[in-house]
Amino acid sequence: MDKKADQIIDSMFEKDSFSQWMGIEVEGFKSGYIKLSIKIREEMCNGFGICHGGITFSLADSALAFASNSRGSVSVALENNINYTKKVEVGDTLIAETEEIQNGKTIGVYKIRVINQHDDLVADFRGTVYRTGKW
Amino acid sequence: MDKKADQIIDSMFEKDSFSQWMGIEVEGFKSGYIKLSIKIREEMCNGFGICHGGITFSLADSALAFASNSRGSVSVALENNINYTKKVEVGDTLIAETEEIQNGKTIGVYKIRVINQHDDLVADFRGTVYRTGKW
Amino acid sequence: MDKKADQIIDSMFEKDSFSQWMGIEVEGFKSGYIKLSIKIREEMCNGFGICHGGITFSLADSALAFASNSRGSVSVALENNINYTKKVEVGDTLIAETEEIQNGKTIGVYKIRVINQHDDLVADFRGTVYRTGKW
Amino acid sequence: MDKKADQIIDSMFEKDSFSQWMGIEVEGFKSGYIKLSIKIREEMCNGFGICHGGITFSLADSALAFASNSRGSVSVALENNINYTKKVEVGDTLIAETEEIQNGKTIGVYKIRVINQHDDLVADFRGTVYRTGKW
Repeated sequence: MDKKADQIIDSMFEKDSFSQWMGIEVEGFKSGYIKLSIKIREEMCNGFGICHGGITFSLADSALAFASNSRGSVSVALENNINYTKKVEVGDTLIAETEEIQNGKTIGVYKIRVINQHDDLVADFRGTVYRTGKW
Repeated sequence: MDKKADQIIDSMFEKDSFSQWMGIEVEGFKSGYIKLSIKIREEMCNGFGICHGGITFSLADSALAFASNSRGSVSVALENNINYTKKVEVGDTLIAETEEIQNGKTIGVYKIRVINQHDDLVADFRGTVYRTGKW
Repeated sequence: MDKKADQIIDSMFEKDSFSQWMGIEVEGFKSGYIKLSIKIREEMCNGFGICHGGITFSLADSALAFASNSRGSVSVALENNINYTKKVEVGDTLIAETEEIQNGKTIGVYKIRVINQHDDLVADFRGTVYRTGKW
Repeated sequence: MDKKADQIIDSMFEKDSFSQWMGIEVEGFKSGYIKLSIKIREEMCNGFGICHGGITFSLADSALAFASNSRGSVSVALENNINYTKKVEVGDTLIAETEEIQNGKTIGVYKIRVINQHDDLVADFRGTVYRTGKW
């Protein structure tokens, strides 16, 4: 078990009201990696009956924050980009999983795939963080 | 006045529970353009006492949706990217303003600047939408 | 063998003076996929003795063009994004390989990993194309 | 006049064979800012008779490098993103102009507009650099 990553993610999650409002659950993690899930509720959807892009993005963004900070240095996002490849609707369950492609002393880069309950890719995300070193 | 854009934005906003949960307000708009504001509340902040990037992104994303759809064609986001240039804290007021840089029949591209109450740039966003033509 | 993809890539490559100037070679392809390589020469490097980012980007961009057009519809790039994860130097050989994550009638999305001769990731790229349907 | 920026740009340009191959010209600069131009030649075009996206990107990327390094710290690109809004053809003259939206000690963010000889926007670019501090 990765005790340090465990403590960091626990501490972050406990204070993260927005991730709690979204109903994000941690499916698994290790240092530099996390898997999150979320159930899409009606209040997350827009006027077209489909999930607001901001929800899908925020799920990926939370995954980025947890995975990058779990390395033991406070990491702040510099740049994020996302492609939406399939619409998300009420009742869908989304799963976000990270892949660390750079783990530098000051810079980290993570790719995050977001899939639904049918294993369809709904979004592809990449984020760059700056490690401030203050944990 | 731009009656069509007016009706579209009214209709979108009314059904958009997430933008309502965020407390987004429309400061002004015309066809292809919108200005939105939001007051940052405690439940939007993460464990570091700073606003979740997902909130800032979602504000910009809502602006993208309103501005692009106001052109009269249902527009879905293909790709979004964002740079965070300054941290956002509880009590801050953010303002997102769009600039339409492409208004094609099938593709639209919008840049969105997000500033705080001190006119500091907090995020810079660009989004590409596909116009499905179904309004 | 994929005759149509074969013809398209042959035809594109033959007319693509810039890819020829770069010395790009096709390592393998099928419909919706391609693998390219390039040897980094001195005239591709900048004042710091490292390869100009534009070369690495252009290799990925050529891979995007070949992979997306090989689907049988003329595809033009809408948006591209790239993270540089390791510096590239004179004498390095780069390999770009595509992954198609969306193959829609009008929109295609491709991820491209660029590695060097030591299998180190040097860049991660994602591109969105619009299919004009005119082949 | 900005002597330090002047020396840095001179020194970078002199050693940058790729920017010289492209025929890039410096139209103006100051610390944190540059304006470049390029004339599109036949060997920069692809099989569709339009300019390779890599050329437009490379022009913007050179502008990013010159503008960010002119601040006096060696700056390496972390992430770049670009939207193409209009096709570029043989004989066109492109002008790239930078806007510095973040000038931090370790991180810089620059937006670059690329227009043609008719003042049409052909591409919109944003780049994030890391300042290594080694000039």
